[in-house]
Amino acid sequence: MTRDRPLRIAEIFGPTIQGEGALIGEPTVFVRAGGCDYRCVWCDSMHAVDSAHRHAWASMEAAQIMDEVRHLSGGQPLTVSISGGNPAIQDFGPVIEMGRAEGYRFACETQGSVPQDWFARLDTLVLSPKPPSSGETVDWERFADCVRAGAPAKTVMKIVIFDNADYAWAQEAAARHPDLPLYLQPGNPEVDPDVAVSLEATTARLRWLVDKATADRWFAPRILPQLHVLLWGNLRGV
Amino acid sequence: MTRDRPLRIAEIFGPTIQGEGALIGEPTVFVRAGGCDYRCVWCDSMHAVDSAHRHAWASMEAAQIMDEVRHLSGGQPLTVSISGGNPAIQDFGPVIEMGRAEGYRFACETQGSVPQDWFARLDTLVLSPKPPSSGETVDWERFADCVRAGAPAKTVMKIVIFDNADYAWAQEAAARHPDLPLYLQPGNPEVDPDVAVSLEATTARLRWLVDKATADRWFAPRILPQLHVLLWGNLRGV
Repeated sequence: MTRDRPLRIAEIFGPTIQGEGALIGEPTVFVRAGGCDYRCVWCDSMHAVDSAHRHAWASMEAAQIMDEVRHLSGGQPLTVSISGGNPAIQDFGPVIEMGRAEGYRFACETQGSVPQDWFARLDTLVLSPKPPSSGETVDWERFADCVRAGAPAKTVMKIVIFDNADYAWAQEAAARHPDLPLYLQPGNPEVDPDVAVSLEATTARLRWLVDKATADRWFAPRILPQLHVLLWGNLRGV
Repeated sequence: MTRDRPLRIAEIFGPTIQGEGALIGEPTVFVRAGGCDYRCVWCDSMHAVDSAHRHAWASMEAAQIMDEVRHLSGGQPLTVSISGGNPAIQDFGPVIEMGRAEGYRFACETQGSVPQDWFARLDTLVLSPKPPSSGETVDWERFADCVRAGAPAKTVMKIVIFDNADYAWAQEAAARHPDLPLYLQPGNPEVDPDVAVSLEATTARLRWLVDKATADRWFAPRILPQLHVLLWGNLRGV
């Protein structure tokens, strides 16, 4: 038996509701991993991405993580969302095993750049390939490896759309993986936690995306906002 | 063969996204039936409820309804939501048969006061029993008949919450039907189409409900806004 390696954790918070995608509205505790293989130019979670922030990350073993989840949820099982950063660069298998044994459900959100065996132990795997506006480039073979690794978890694709180029790219991504339920959300350029988010501008971006997709009669994707941004702006820990 | 009886239709509009509940974000054409057996005091669709508005309702046969749906969607199958009023006081079976044969999917939203055989031909049946603030009283036996009639459609329960009494009532309703996926949404007291909706007040109501349920560790329901109200206020036809 090897001792589990500790995990780099940027924050654990909740319960609150999931703000995005397939589980929107679902009561959730978030475990945000520290560290990422991407550097999306519009990243809204740089505090969990850039290793310049690593002094603020905790080093936690699986049991410590579940202690904190249990504390936050009052021991009442709910959905735990493992996000980041890219959580797939670490081994969350032991956390998932431990939590599932107690009735917790697990979702994981990752860009789909690194497949992991533990994806198969999730309830929901959200793969969010990054569009051109991110400045990153998707390796579609690795992405397909992630889709395969996810079975039998419910696997969905979520794409953030900042502009027309992202939108066209999302249509190509959807064509590559027509079997994955697809969720689109407008990009949020207002990521400074010290500046209040404009509700008007945020809803205007969603209207733009809804109008565009319906005008094109592209009815495959669900189109959703970042509900937490509408509710709490860029405040952390909610 | 009997000739189908024409249906009372208040409006057909879309495609837009579903703003509420289990299908939130889903591209949808709405078929809003005219007429209702309830008179909820906070009803946001009185134009489809009160027979004082019946001069504005169309009398349409199933084929005419599907003609309009096909026209709006450009013949591209999508989800059709049958709402109202209470659509369950009419026979939407022929519309559903005709649409399904062309690949359209059907959802229906009803309070659960009148069971119908055609519920079983839906993809999604949304039963929204009305809480005390509505001024109506739920007949739980009829409601259970509706749940039974819905199988094998995916049947969910959606409850609007205006105040603490509604919230407590929703917990009892959930206990009656623990197997139905549950969706809560804050009530919207701003239903005058001529008065702009306050985004701040709307999001504050959602924050209230999220905070209340998470403080109580009531993790069963998903908690969602009326997205269309955030996007378009009380404007009709979107």
